[in-house]
Amino acid sequence: MTELLAAAWAGTGAGALVDDHALLTAMLATEVALAEAQAELGVIPEEAAKAIRAAAVPERLDVAAVADGVRETANPVVAFVAQLTAAVDESAAEYVHRGSTSQDILDTALVLLCAAAFDRVEADLLATAESLAGLVEAHRDTPMAGRTLTQHAVPVTFGLKAATWLHGVLDAVERVRRTRAALPVSLGGAAGTLAAYHEYAEAALSRESAGSALPDRVAAKLGLAPQVAPWHGIRTPIADVASALLVTTGALGKIANDVLVLSRTEIGEVTEERAPGRGASSAMPQKHNPVFATLVATAARQLPPLAVVLFQSMTAEDERSAGGWHAEWQPLRECLRTAAGAAANAARLTASLRVSPEAMAANLRLTRGAIVSERVNAVLAPVLGKGAAKRLLAAAAAEAERTGADLVDVLDVDVPPDLLDPAGYLGLSGPLADRALARFERERHR
Amino acid sequence: MTELLAAAWAGTGAGALVDDHALLTAMLATEVALAEAQAELGVIPEEAAKAIRAAAVPERLDVAAVADGVRETANPVVAFVAQLTAAVDESAAEYVHRGSTSQDILDTALVLLCAAAFDRVEADLLATAESLAGLVEAHRDTPMAGRTLTQHAVPVTFGLKAATWLHGVLDAVERVRRTRAALPVSLGGAAGTLAAYHEYAEAALSRESAGSALPDRVAAKLGLAPQVAPWHGIRTPIADVASALLVTTGALGKIANDVLVLSRTEIGEVTEERAPGRGASSAMPQKHNPVFATLVATAARQLPPLAVVLFQSMTAEDERSAGGWHAEWQPLRECLRTAAGAAANAARLTASLRVSPEAMAANLRLTRGAIVSERVNAVLAPVLGKGAAKRLLAAAAAEAERTGADLVDVLDVDVPPDLLDPAGYLGLSGPLADRALARFERERHR
Amino acid sequence: MTELLAAAWAGTGAGALVDDHALLTAMLATEVALAEAQAELGVIPEEAAKAIRAAAVPERLDVAAVADGVRETANPVVAFVAQLTAAVDESAAEYVHRGSTSQDILDTALVLLCAAAFDRVEADLLATAESLAGLVEAHRDTPMAGRTLTQHAVPVTFGLKAATWLHGVLDAVERVRRTRAALPVSLGGAAGTLAAYHEYAEAALSRESAGSALPDRVAAKLGLAPQVAPWHGIRTPIADVASALLVTTGALGKIANDVLVLSRTEIGEVTEERAPGRGASSAMPQKHNPVFATLVATAARQLPPLAVVLFQSMTAEDERSAGGWHAEWQPLRECLRTAAGAAANAARLTASLRVSPEAMAANLRLTRGAIVSERVNAVLAPVLGKGAAKRLLAAAAAEAERTGADLVDVLDVDVPPDLLDPAGYLGLSGPLADRALARFERERHR
Amino acid sequence: MTELLAAAWAGTGAGALVDDHALLTAMLATEVALAEAQAELGVIPEEAAKAIRAAAVPERLDVAAVADGVRETANPVVAFVAQLTAAVDESAAEYVHRGSTSQDILDTALVLLCAAAFDRVEADLLATAESLAGLVEAHRDTPMAGRTLTQHAVPVTFGLKAATWLHGVLDAVERVRRTRAALPVSLGGAAGTLAAYHEYAEAALSRESAGSALPDRVAAKLGLAPQVAPWHGIRTPIADVASALLVTTGALGKIANDVLVLSRTEIGEVTEERAPGRGASSAMPQKHNPVFATLVATAARQLPPLAVVLFQSMTAEDERSAGGWHAEWQPLRECLRTAAGAAANAARLTASLRVSPEAMAANLRLTRGAIVSERVNAVLAPVLGKGAAKRLLAAAAAEAERTGADLVDVLDVDVPPDLLDPAGYLGLSGPLADRALARFERERHR
Repeated sequence: MTELLAAAWAGTGAGALVDDHALLTAMLATEVALAEAQAELGVIPEEAAKAIRAAAVPERLDVAAVADGVRETANPVVAFVAQLTAAVDESAAEYVHRGSTSQDILDTALVLLCAAAFDRVEADLLATAESLAGLVEAHRDTPMAGRTLTQHAVPVTFGLKAATWLHGVLDAVERVRRTRAALPVSLGGAAGTLAAYHEYAEAALSRESAGSALPDRVAAKLGLAPQVAPWHGIRTPIADVASALLVTTGALGKIANDVLVLSRTEIGEVTEERAPGRGASSAMPQKHNPVFATLVATAARQLPPLAVVLFQSMTAEDERSAGGWHAEWQPLRECLRTAAGAAANAARLTASLRVSPEAMAANLRLTRGAIVSERVNAVLAPVLGKGAAKRLLAAAAAEAERTGADLVDVLDVDVPPDLLDPAGYLGLSGPLADRALARFERERHR
Repeated sequence: MTELLAAAWAGTGAGALVDDHALLTAMLATEVALAEAQAELGVIPEEAAKAIRAAAVPERLDVAAVADGVRETANPVVAFVAQLTAAVDESAAEYVHRGSTSQDILDTALVLLCAAAFDRVEADLLATAESLAGLVEAHRDTPMAGRTLTQHAVPVTFGLKAATWLHGVLDAVERVRRTRAALPVSLGGAAGTLAAYHEYAEAALSRESAGSALPDRVAAKLGLAPQVAPWHGIRTPIADVASALLVTTGALGKIANDVLVLSRTEIGEVTEERAPGRGASSAMPQKHNPVFATLVATAARQLPPLAVVLFQSMTAEDERSAGGWHAEWQPLRECLRTAAGAAANAARLTASLRVSPEAMAANLRLTRGAIVSERVNAVLAPVLGKGAAKRLLAAAAAEAERTGADLVDVLDVDVPPDLLDPAGYLGLSGPLADRALARFERERHR
Repeated sequence: MTELLAAAWAGTGAGALVDDHALLTAMLATEVALAEAQAELGVIPEEAAKAIRAAAVPERLDVAAVADGVRETANPVVAFVAQLTAAVDESAAEYVHRGSTSQDILDTALVLLCAAAFDRVEADLLATAESLAGLVEAHRDTPMAGRTLTQHAVPVTFGLKAATWLHGVLDAVERVRRTRAALPVSLGGAAGTLAAYHEYAEAALSRESAGSALPDRVAAKLGLAPQVAPWHGIRTPIADVASALLVTTGALGKIANDVLVLSRTEIGEVTEERAPGRGASSAMPQKHNPVFATLVATAARQLPPLAVVLFQSMTAEDERSAGGWHAEWQPLRECLRTAAGAAANAARLTASLRVSPEAMAANLRLTRGAIVSERVNAVLAPVLGKGAAKRLLAAAAAEAERTGADLVDVLDVDVPPDLLDPAGYLGLSGPLADRALARFERERHR
Repeated sequence: MTELLAAAWAGTGAGALVDDHALLTAMLATEVALAEAQAELGVIPEEAAKAIRAAAVPERLDVAAVADGVRETANPVVAFVAQLTAAVDESAAEYVHRGSTSQDILDTALVLLCAAAFDRVEADLLATAESLAGLVEAHRDTPMAGRTLTQHAVPVTFGLKAATWLHGVLDAVERVRRTRAALPVSLGGAAGTLAAYHEYAEAALSRESAGSALPDRVAAKLGLAPQVAPWHGIRTPIADVASALLVTTGALGKIANDVLVLSRTEIGEVTEERAPGRGASSAMPQKHNPVFATLVATAARQLPPLAVVLFQSMTAEDERSAGGWHAEWQPLRECLRTAAGAAANAARLTASLRVSPEAMAANLRLTRGAIVSERVNAVLAPVLGKGAAKRLLAAAAAEAERTGADLVDVLDVDVPPDLLDPAGYLGLSGPLADRALARFERERHR
């Protein structure tokens, strides 16, 4: 276990989704599915497929030897196949990995890890969305300061803010689902022609050998989508995985960064749940640091650069590249566990977020009316003219700030006092919150 | 014009799609659409909308003053609105930018630039796809060496190679179309509540003022999709733009990198078209450098890092951020013109690529049979056993390489000579090429 | 001019340092220096060098034609040399660009742009440092809340905070100076052998032709360092430029991000200077947005991804690459103007930053004593034991927070009241501030 | 162990330099050094320091519990300190971590990991340099084709090519050494004021407590440099680490990418050593893939994006940030092991690279003289005029290419035949190789 520095996913279980054990398990599953599909198509004996399945137990593999093999052959598959071959009954050894190439096995196994991680991410995104929907509902009409460029701007509601977060999470859900459903098996053979698979099929007089019968069967067995074509050299599936994960940590990171602002000592509008030891400092007894928001923000900072390698490897040369493909593996793993960790932590963050309408109300009063000067302007502009109204208000706001007076008291014109009530200038905050809830209802039942 | 260093898009016209003139034109179009929609909804007088349209001429703006405004207000909109207001007839000046905020105008204008760039990219991707389809068809059965990790692996066809490129381009077409169709208008007002728009509508007793009537009308006028919600703080549309562009330059960069390999002096299987001065060197009279491939490869190297900023800005804090939003603008522009330049250059590259089946045939013979050793292995393995067959062939291949002999002559077992014919071991190259062509036919008619 | 979207550098003059005019001027300077050095070495006639200098006027060049040339030859030099050759007197035309290659001219010109940008950056960093030193001095003993993970932690001084910023800026100054001093000329000829230069020198019986006489003379004429070796394929100088700029925007972005926090409406400890129109909103009359901090923060977000391409291009293949080199140009330009813009904006930001010791004092009281609980802990731990003390203080802090009481009033043990004075627990803030000032004094006089 | 996907460092031992065991060991070393320094300064009893050293054994720690703690407190230090405190004798428990904060311990421990990794990198860079120096010497005068934009350009020598690689590696050595020597201890206390350290020192009447006595002693004990200032908020040391590693993988990746080109089947000028199983394919018996070059190229692709996070975290807000700091850890670890893996693999690659002067000579003849057309041009230009000579040669080169004739035979002018001997047009390749060797001699003895 080397996760002490993995702030984005330590302790979330995301590591185990994609660690070496998970990888070897997925590689074994791929070899088994291949053998069973070939048996069904009459390319290898049924007995051989059974023997391969029987031998495909991760614990029988010598992981250290497989790792050493990476440095001998530039991938873990050659040593892995040798070990698997040695583990099966001698009569079936011939049929292990028949017609296959390293990239077929490793890419399919990586796609299986993607599938597992995406399933986890989807579940945690939906849990997060549910918590957010609760916040939207509970605070549909809770006014708070809207902030732009760090300054109080106009009033909003916390319900609208949570609705904004919710839309982001639902955007992520859509993209994660779409990408998950399209995750394809990878079977191309040595150079994408499927030649060796085909050769063995021909030799076995398999009638269904042509076309995509074999890849489609393997895909079905593994719960993956068929491949449009062998994709050793068409890395769109990996790019799509990256894109979906980027929207995921982007949406979650937005929540985290907002929570970090709102939980500042001076603002105090939201706080993470208190639990013994949670957010403790090694130095300061009073500290309750916003832990989950920090961890989610960490993930959101890390993912975009990691994904660069995945997009760049799309251009790798030749039928199979020297370096481009290899450079995908570790960042892909890190992207998956980082996003899965972020989703797990975001689910925790939103499930227990404490909201303080009192602090929101107090902060709304901080500018003593200036936060609704846009509204006053909208009323005065038709009367005084646009430029004159804005100048008058800017001057009044400046004087109010300088003197500590209320805006209404330094205005040179009379306005009805309730015009300056922040709660009266929420625009469409309510209906927009409702719309987000409606979208959530649609998405959750899909 | 500052494009001498912009290898990715210089000379392609992509720069003009997103330059300051294009931006100001789009900002003006947004203000006009806003005013006209408000006039239709009874919020401002018809005459005011007409006056605004009449004044909305880019040439009337002082671009340098707008640029200076960026440093005064951290965006170009404040100075722009001031100039537009000064340009319209006095009686209509009140109604310029009514209820709006800088980000509404700038984001919508940026989306319009995205739309223009995506339309150009789609057209050039389709042109590229058409050229590739021609290559697939013409070379469906042209054998060539498949290369993996830089070494000859097994035979493929050039038709299959071009089919691989074609799938990548069609993947990009799909994503570009999907994203283009969903490009949304942006209207949220100062903090995403639409409050000022709403306030003015109420004051005008506009019956349709509630909900999304205004944003939807503005969207329709500009040829954009409606917004799901005000998205100042939900940057998924920008992330989707980035993702579609990344798949675009990824797919095109793959073609470019392959062309660079195949046009090496020692390989010579493809060459770019010759034209006077094309690919000339300032030093070496004999040089014909692969220009378009180099320029496309350049774009593909540059785009992924540029997109990092766009993904990271998804997490920007508050109702509208200080820095996160601002950091999007320049990379977004650069991403758009880089991808558009790549598509234009890829269209040129593929339209005129010269293919040499003779060089392919000659290179196929270079390993004197070893390139089909996988096939020989597939024949021998069932007879000799998998391990023994592979060892025998590895030894023979090594001896052949050392001595310069043909593989067939150093094999210790008899095999039919035509087993070593590369043209006989193409797997499913032909049917896979056909499948790519069929996909192209479907996509082009969408 | 296309800088409306360049928030990082619009209006700062940084654009002009590296635009096409600056580039062409630098390319002309390089050709002139080459010709004059060759004339001094007896390789070309003195008269030819004079004619070349006379013709080397940017205004004579047709920039659009040079830009079109980028798409013909994958660089702007071929068309540029053709134009320069046409512009010089016929008798001297032979001697233009003698023995040279495109990369020699373009790389040297780019290095000249680096030099100009670095000089500007250094000046603005020193101006920033001077302003910061003033803040350190003025606020050496001004207490404020130290914040960690967004929460009040222990007291610091604003002088220490400014000292921290100052150290970062001085780190940048050191790296910018070191890199500027080492910026090398680039002269390698077509493939790094200097062969054509050598050939012409031999033909002219130039006695000094061997070795690095020519590159060193060209370097001296241009105010650049000698090259260690021709560096078409050794891109360390570009990596060093990137590293120095990254430290620059890193250090300045730290200041900007801190200012953005401290100028939040709820915190209000610093504000940017007020000036008419500065930080105005297009919607809200009361707004005074932190403009310079936003622009500097923008630059700091953009630079690291841009630099990725520069580091990746270090690995480009062959004597001169197809794509790797070309991909450097535009990001290098953007890095230079982004960092120069950041330095200019940071100088403005720090020159006029307004500090509110009153707000700092008020915020320090917000936690009613909890901000010094670390100190109380240090006093109690030796008495009560470490664990017991920390538990007691955590409980008291929680109760104080819940009830709104002062920490001192809910502590179960007696402590001297002045123990809870934040101003009494500043640690080494003062001496650390002094140390930063001393470092500044040393650096400024270098 | 989770390194099966870590192509960049699997099997090299680099993983163990920075894994959780190494980290905990370094954290323990930091706590011990702190305690011992405090004992020497009279702040804590000698016996306590001894007890802490005695307890500081990694095996006593429950790593899983520390990992769980990351999710409770957003860092591994709080749980770690609790465990260490429990492990020491009760009487000394008070003195563990006295005055310290999580970031002090973790940053110092991370710097210790940097030191270990840098030492390994330096050793492997020097080994690589030595091998390269051997190649430079052995092939000082071996002509080969210089290639630019993938095409034969002018002749070079393999000695010069290896000299270019050597310069890059020596650039890396310089930067690694400089950065290693400056790696600082990190001691700032909760918010960079050193307040708690100071408080305990005052309480103990320690006379040396002021200033930097404590940090400097801890630094000396750990073999680190003193800190210029507490650097929780001045991340230049991390940026410098990133920069040095980027130059390292940049220089090594250049070698790898060149080897990948030169070992292509059609080029065959260099090959990696042959060893049983090395570079084997799971599919193709004849394959000997370039393994070490592929692994080094992988590392070079991965590092620049990883480093983005490190540069971006320089701007993190407040005295200690929420997310910015946390985002550094995992990428820093990955950067260190990726660079260390690259150096180990590069040392293997260069130690056993096989060079084929025969293949170089054969390839040099491929263009039948065109590769020296620059030289012919240099001879003809003074006679015929620059433009005329270049046109004549371009035409001749085109005809020679079209017809398969030798360039000399299709030239319309007479030239001495030895003018077209590639070996006669090597420019300063020899002296430049010598200069690289001289630099190596200087560097190795530093």
